[in-house]
Amino acid sequence: MLLFHHPMSASSRFVRLVLSEYGETPELQLEQPWDRRPEFMQMNPAGTLPVMTGEANSAIVGAFAISEYLDETRGPIMRGRRLMPDTPPGRAEVRRLIDWFLVKTEADVTRALVRERVFKVQMSPAQGGGAPDSAVLRAARANIRQHMRYLGWLAQSRDWLAGDGQTYADLAAAATVSVLDYLGEIDWNAEPAARDWYQRMKSRPSFRDILSDRVRGLPPVSHYSDLDF
Amino acid sequence: MLLFHHPMSASSRFVRLVLSEYGETPELQLEQPWDRRPEFMQMNPAGTLPVMTGEANSAIVGAFAISEYLDETRGPIMRGRRLMPDTPPGRAEVRRLIDWFLVKTEADVTRALVRERVFKVQMSPAQGGGAPDSAVLRAARANIRQHMRYLGWLAQSRDWLAGDGQTYADLAAAATVSVLDYLGEIDWNAEPAARDWYQRMKSRPSFRDILSDRVRGLPPVSHYSDLDF
Repeated sequence: MLLFHHPMSASSRFVRLVLSEYGETPELQLEQPWDRRPEFMQMNPAGTLPVMTGEANSAIVGAFAISEYLDETRGPIMRGRRLMPDTPPGRAEVRRLIDWFLVKTEADVTRALVRERVFKVQMSPAQGGGAPDSAVLRAARANIRQHMRYLGWLAQSRDWLAGDGQTYADLAAAATVSVLDYLGEIDWNAEPAARDWYQRMKSRPSFRDILSDRVRGLPPVSHYSDLDF
Repeated sequence: MLLFHHPMSASSRFVRLVLSEYGETPELQLEQPWDRRPEFMQMNPAGTLPVMTGEANSAIVGAFAISEYLDETRGPIMRGRRLMPDTPPGRAEVRRLIDWFLVKTEADVTRALVRERVFKVQMSPAQGGGAPDSAVLRAARANIRQHMRYLGWLAQSRDWLAGDGQTYADLAAAATVSVLDYLGEIDWNAEPAARDWYQRMKSRPSFRDILSDRVRGLPPVSHYSDLDF
């Protein structure tokens, strides 16, 4: 099993966490989505991450398709460790939250901060590289507060984000938060319940790989790997 | 069953098509997402459409959660008429395409055209209403060609977009295309295979409601409801 990913892609981190929780150890292949490699674009014309190969006859594309595929093929034998609830309404709530973190937070916050602060530094001018756009950064940073407040509210009102047990919703949220935290964009003092929840997530063995991720030329904020931050 | 929707929301149209194919007749409630009605925001803090109520104890939010919920609760008894394949890889391909049309095409094309040409006319200045931004329209119209070309390629290489049978992928694509076609944004001469496929989709009984949708003050392009266009 081979996973095309980027360490600053929240959707890639989400799938890595799911695989790790289910005891799978895929080979990881770093993909720079802005390169638009022909072989990669052929697997996924959308040019997005992650993409998983080596499991079915053709590539499985995107966090949505991969996570449901893993639930269908691995979930039932996991019993109490299954990361999706058993009831359709419970599953609907998990999917709402995956959508919130990997589509909405991604569009409002994560994509812009990662593109401006990480990708544009490594892209050539022809690829759209260059200095960060301060107006884009400002807009994303204004949005981050609302998203962290919602995370705090979820963490305060429920044991885990989607209810009583740990689910894909926690992994999708933690994947997103870990990217933003790497970049030092999160004010942890503002959301203590979110911090307590993230501390629990960081302590899981599945999180170790994520906490040792490093991006060339951009070290993480000092508390990034601390379990007690 | 009650579905909060807007006629120019591709994700709402997708869910209406699924419900109709499965013989469900929900009550439809028009929601203007830019109003951010407190009762609506409480059901769905993301403020997005569609939202379905009256089925589980709490609202089911978003096309992704609703369509999977309907597959789980209706799909198995539909036998040959089920709109998701039986195998995990087949289902992964359908989900990749739902994601393509309802997330990627939405972000690259649909959201901008609908917002600039429909929503901004009805929004107050305080809500962000006003004249369309011609730079935004131009960018969306440049992207539409690539998306229609991909649709044409799928329609040409397969019986239905995700393979041998009609699936959610066809309904998600047709929902998106129908919004863009209402606005007269599609050049049908450029993609004959896509046109043949859309003609088949338009002829289905589930499509009748969509073809009679009208937006106040903005009549559809003349061929919008024609089955032979």
